[in-house]
Amino acid sequence: MTDKSPKIIYTLTDEAPALATASLLPIIRTFTAPAGISVETSDISVAARILATFPEYLSEDQRVVDTLAELGEMTHDPHANIIKLPNVSASIPQLKAAIAELQSQGYKIPSYPDEPATDAERDIQGRYAKILGSAVNPVLRQGNSDRRAPAAVKAYARKFPHSMGKWSAASRSHAAYMKGGDFYSSEQSITLPEETDVRIEFVGQDGKVEVKKELHLEKGEVLDSMFMSAKALRKFFEDTLEDCRETGVMWSLHVKATMMKVSHPIVFGHAVTVFYKDLFEKHGKLFEELGVNPNNGLSSVYDKIKALPDSQQEEILKDIHACYANRPEMAMVDSVKGITNLHIPSDVIVDASMPAMIRNSGQMWGPDGKAKDTKAVMPESTYARIYQEMINFCKTNGAFDPTTMGTVPNVGLMAMKAEEYGSHDKTYELKADGIMRVVDAKDGSVLMQHKVEKGDIWRACQTKDAAIRDWVKLAVTRSRQSNTPAIFWLDKERAHDAQLRLKVEAYLKEHDTTGLDIRINSYIPAIRRTMERLIRGKDTISVTGNVLRDYLTDLFPIMELGTSAKMLSIVPMLAGGGMYETGAGGSAPKHVQQLVEENHLRWDSLGEFLALAVSLEELGIKENNPRAKVLAKALDKATEKLLENNKSPSRRTGELDNRGSHFYLAMYWAQEVAAQDDDAELKAKFAPLAQTLTENEAKIVEELNAVQGKPADIGGYYHADPEKTKAVMRPSATLNAALASMKG
Amino acid sequence: MTDKSPKIIYTLTDEAPALATASLLPIIRTFTAPAGISVETSDISVAARILATFPEYLSEDQRVVDTLAELGEMTHDPHANIIKLPNVSASIPQLKAAIAELQSQGYKIPSYPDEPATDAERDIQGRYAKILGSAVNPVLRQGNSDRRAPAAVKAYARKFPHSMGKWSAASRSHAAYMKGGDFYSSEQSITLPEETDVRIEFVGQDGKVEVKKELHLEKGEVLDSMFMSAKALRKFFEDTLEDCRETGVMWSLHVKATMMKVSHPIVFGHAVTVFYKDLFEKHGKLFEELGVNPNNGLSSVYDKIKALPDSQQEEILKDIHACYANRPEMAMVDSVKGITNLHIPSDVIVDASMPAMIRNSGQMWGPDGKAKDTKAVMPESTYARIYQEMINFCKTNGAFDPTTMGTVPNVGLMAMKAEEYGSHDKTYELKADGIMRVVDAKDGSVLMQHKVEKGDIWRACQTKDAAIRDWVKLAVTRSRQSNTPAIFWLDKERAHDAQLRLKVEAYLKEHDTTGLDIRINSYIPAIRRTMERLIRGKDTISVTGNVLRDYLTDLFPIMELGTSAKMLSIVPMLAGGGMYETGAGGSAPKHVQQLVEENHLRWDSLGEFLALAVSLEELGIKENNPRAKVLAKALDKATEKLLENNKSPSRRTGELDNRGSHFYLAMYWAQEVAAQDDDAELKAKFAPLAQTLTENEAKIVEELNAVQGKPADIGGYYHADPEKTKAVMRPSATLNAALASMKG
Repeated sequence: MTDKSPKIIYTLTDEAPALATASLLPIIRTFTAPAGISVETSDISVAARILATFPEYLSEDQRVVDTLAELGEMTHDPHANIIKLPNVSASIPQLKAAIAELQSQGYKIPSYPDEPATDAERDIQGRYAKILGSAVNPVLRQGNSDRRAPAAVKAYARKFPHSMGKWSAASRSHAAYMKGGDFYSSEQSITLPEETDVRIEFVGQDGKVEVKKELHLEKGEVLDSMFMSAKALRKFFEDTLEDCRETGVMWSLHVKATMMKVSHPIVFGHAVTVFYKDLFEKHGKLFEELGVNPNNGLSSVYDKIKALPDSQQEEILKDIHACYANRPEMAMVDSVKGITNLHIPSDVIVDASMPAMIRNSGQMWGPDGKAKDTKAVMPESTYARIYQEMINFCKTNGAFDPTTMGTVPNVGLMAMKAEEYGSHDKTYELKADGIMRVVDAKDGSVLMQHKVEKGDIWRACQTKDAAIRDWVKLAVTRSRQSNTPAIFWLDKERAHDAQLRLKVEAYLKEHDTTGLDIRINSYIPAIRRTMERLIRGKDTISVTGNVLRDYLTDLFPIMELGTSAKMLSIVPMLAGGGMYETGAGGSAPKHVQQLVEENHLRWDSLGEFLALAVSLEELGIKENNPRAKVLAKALDKATEKLLENNKSPSRRTGELDNRGSHFYLAMYWAQEVAAQDDDAELKAKFAPLAQTLTENEAKIVEELNAVQGKPADIGGYYHADPEKTKAVMRPSATLNAALASMKG
Repeated sequence: MTDKSPKIIYTLTDEAPALATASLLPIIRTFTAPAGISVETSDISVAARILATFPEYLSEDQRVVDTLAELGEMTHDPHANIIKLPNVSASIPQLKAAIAELQSQGYKIPSYPDEPATDAERDIQGRYAKILGSAVNPVLRQGNSDRRAPAAVKAYARKFPHSMGKWSAASRSHAAYMKGGDFYSSEQSITLPEETDVRIEFVGQDGKVEVKKELHLEKGEVLDSMFMSAKALRKFFEDTLEDCRETGVMWSLHVKATMMKVSHPIVFGHAVTVFYKDLFEKHGKLFEELGVNPNNGLSSVYDKIKALPDSQQEEILKDIHACYANRPEMAMVDSVKGITNLHIPSDVIVDASMPAMIRNSGQMWGPDGKAKDTKAVMPESTYARIYQEMINFCKTNGAFDPTTMGTVPNVGLMAMKAEEYGSHDKTYELKADGIMRVVDAKDGSVLMQHKVEKGDIWRACQTKDAAIRDWVKLAVTRSRQSNTPAIFWLDKERAHDAQLRLKVEAYLKEHDTTGLDIRINSYIPAIRRTMERLIRGKDTISVTGNVLRDYLTDLFPIMELGTSAKMLSIVPMLAGGGMYETGAGGSAPKHVQQLVEENHLRWDSLGEFLALAVSLEELGIKENNPRAKVLAKALDKATEKLLENNKSPSRRTGELDNRGSHFYLAMYWAQEVAAQDDDAELKAKFAPLAQTLTENEAKIVEELNAVQGKPADIGGYYHADPEKTKAVMRPSATLNAALASMKG
């Protein structure tokens, strides 16, 4: 990466954002090319990652390079400028669907082996495991996180507030979490005084020691270990189900099986086998033979029994339904199709589902399609408690009011796979009773240990000192730049956070904090103070660990803006480069479905607009490129205009969609560049485009909307056909011609 | 009061405590006489105060002296040592019942004129007004308040916990309070830089100024003014009723019509006329003619319509019942008798009813006699918010656990009629729209003003600088003596508290607070921190204003001990004397009913035992009386024994009652005096009594229990016959003889 010509890397991902890119990227390039800035793509979709993983199965022309690895390298370049769109954190069912699609397209990649029997199969499963879940972010996020609502977006939300469900003080909804036996209760944490090597070991009841993993730890690194008791977890699920049956409150499970790709599917699996206890008791042996994996949800049962004779299938289906008689109502992902909360582990992602529930009067959707008060079951108590606090707060103060509430930017500890989000390779579902321990290889001393039982989930988490130090610095910087009070959310009673408190206190002294209001609070006082300020219109920066970063940058934005996709999400990388993430709202599978069925894409690219503006602005500053700054400024103005004129995509087929919104962005952006006087050459260059687009507004919108209402063929889901996608996403000949005319 | 012979004043009050005194006082005197300590009585019962108010209506031998005034004088004596038992804070219906009873006994006192027409009647009403509500405490409480759970009581509660209703996270119960238009929202507050005279004035829309009151204010005194909008209040009631009807949650009103004897009956009256809107709309004119006063509750309607022909009564009763069809279920005071929450203003006293509800799983009793989730309606938001916080806390953490929880002692600002509790003579229900203002008489400058409307309730409150200064001192002293963190509960956003914060900050500097954890928090953070500590077994002193003092010394004790009657309640008086209050649990009308019907008095005199011990101890210290100290120490041990051996009164007729409990106290006390070696003479004196009582335990208990199960005649309720009461309360000839034998 020694090439210093100004360059932006734009990622190709999955689902709706990938589709939107087919329309937006030609527009972006139209604007950046005259400024001498190239916009290159990097395909990090699930399909591309699968193909890159198995070159030996592919023909020469089918092979692709490992762009994710390339991009990961690039994060260490101080000039890196990456625009990262949302991608799929694949669950096993999603991965399998992608594999099947690629196979159907003639890619001879191996199938996913559910229960690998041979070394070869184990190797295949191991390689696929690296594609699962949150595989992209840990590679790219080589820095901490700076997320905030752009001023224009906040102003728009205050003026045109999204709908917020009313909260009743009589609501029965609440959060349920374990009061013991969970990761929180068992957490131990140490800070390494010197660099060292450690072994993670399991000691069986026979005294035999099994080395699970060897790790090199840096000086000052924080290492945590903790476990979730399977017995306690199953009792907790049973208790919550029983409580719901008694009180009539609906039961709903909220986990994070995507990001916590090892531990949470196991937790999810326990929920499935507890809820459908009678089913698994009766058919357990058969299910084992069939390869049913409850960690993949009840869908795994439906899948696997397809191999059985009809009569046997019917019996099992009857037994599934019989389970519902003894259980409370369960929240539905899709009540029309009968898809429950326990169907697929990736369907209810806590950080998205909880804000949605809170925004919806604390209710989720029941089997009868009606919104109902809910027990939101989140086994791990560590972070679940903040949702209970917010639910109590809404019961007491009513729903948040987007027209008057303040904002909660986040500075998140994310660099170097910090905390739980980097724990996957140090997570174990225990096969027997015994002791899990961390041993210092230097002298064999036991640093931490837990007495565990068969089935318990044990894990270790690492947090690098350099990441923490940078995080504290970023917090002070953001507090100073935005003149906003900041709270470090660190729980006094939590082992890991106690270690971090010491570091934060020490590193804060490295900065001038004169006149700043920077505090360290436990989670509950932190969220409470934040919310009390919020309803009084006051802003508070949340400075949090990695998981809370993820949770809070959905929670507050969804209250404030109705979506987290409109947040500025910046990763100021440790090496000096920058990554600009576009929205945290997921990759929207439902949007693709609507496009395929009705040729309407309701994906809102606002996140891309905002990220691009910051990307250009920082490129302008870092590379001393005035044209980038001009483009950035014009783009921000264009975005404001777009919001104010309500040119965001509609949800309804037949109205302005993603493509139409892109057109308006192009038109406003061209108008703004043509209107500015900082760069005469650019002004002259864009004046004709501005004129053409302005004059053809009605015609272009007409062309864009005319295609809607009929099915669209993009030739694939995970691996769509580029030409077909281009045809679908760029249906306006007038717009295409106008953009093309700029190439001359 | 120059007589310095050691003396304790024991108050005679009303209802159960007064009955208990008939049994306990002879025992106390048996013990104190040999120590040379006299125990004198002072009758401050409602009946005595009525008789003292109208001497000119009574025959010479019927007249009584104004003992309350005498006692008030005594509080300025540094030697004062007063044991104050709970007394009735009479509502108008209670006052009328007492008047009727006295009249029936041949006391020719005037009836209470509901609507005085003549000057004479107005004079009578004015004199009666001084007997109403909290008439005793403001006279006697010439100091701030020090309340705490005695160690023995706390230890007992941990070992033998009272029952606590389980809390469901799905509970629908909550507190409802106004979000505007109440006293909190309109409060203004000033601190007087110099002493001055002010006028409280009403300025009509015609500009005419009516002087309502003239006040002399001291230097440093805090003066508040505030109003409750009648319109906002009525809308609030209507909204809460409508919300309950929609959600199916039961409606319940909680006010403090006794202590807040002017403002809260009006608030209560609005609740009655809103709930029974249709009734009052239809019959309003008739009710006015009949003299119905909704401020006295729906019982006023029932009372007044008795004068009507049967058919008309029936129509009105039908109309009352018709109201229920359009209203939600209402909490019942007595569902068997159909007595609702709105029947009599003194029936549901917020500081007692809310803890009872919280202890009862957040439920109150419905018309069908079943416990139900409840909307606890407390119009004024100032203090109601703490209940909502506790309800949320219980939903989140479950019910408090008496076996593990810490304790919350209180240091309360009470001296010199502080705050709202001294506002009665400065409270006005406005007769017209206009401006209420406080004007400095010196120069006519307007110090505070409010635009008010007809029907609004305006009031002013005073808080003397000397009282605040003493309160801060008492807080530091208690924090130091008990080595317990203390929180001043002062709401940052409240005008009055903002003034107090400045004073507290200043006065704290007058003391050595090294090593103490003393904070100033707003109410919600204060209660939250207190509760978080509480469930972790940690103690926290609440340092509060006058109303919160009253509320919290019921709230926390009822969770910790099951009752507030077991609290030590000390008033270290400004002049140097001490008042020892026995329990804050009210005077227990239901207990009297049980005694009269079944000759069983379940009143627990533990509060008297504890107060007496502190009274004797302080007398021993202040008057340098070693025997008082010996008696105090022995009494404390006796009380511990009594608790441990479970010799407190049973609720069930036929088992040990108040009288039996007194016997055991006497026995244990005698045993302890006989066992000590600090005073040989006392030891010798009490050894025979200890022996007699110990030997006759079975016989005495048998005699005491034998009388139960039949009605008992005490010859009155408010003004019982002393001889009849004595006969009922001292039925054991053996015990009486044993005590009498000590007189020799």
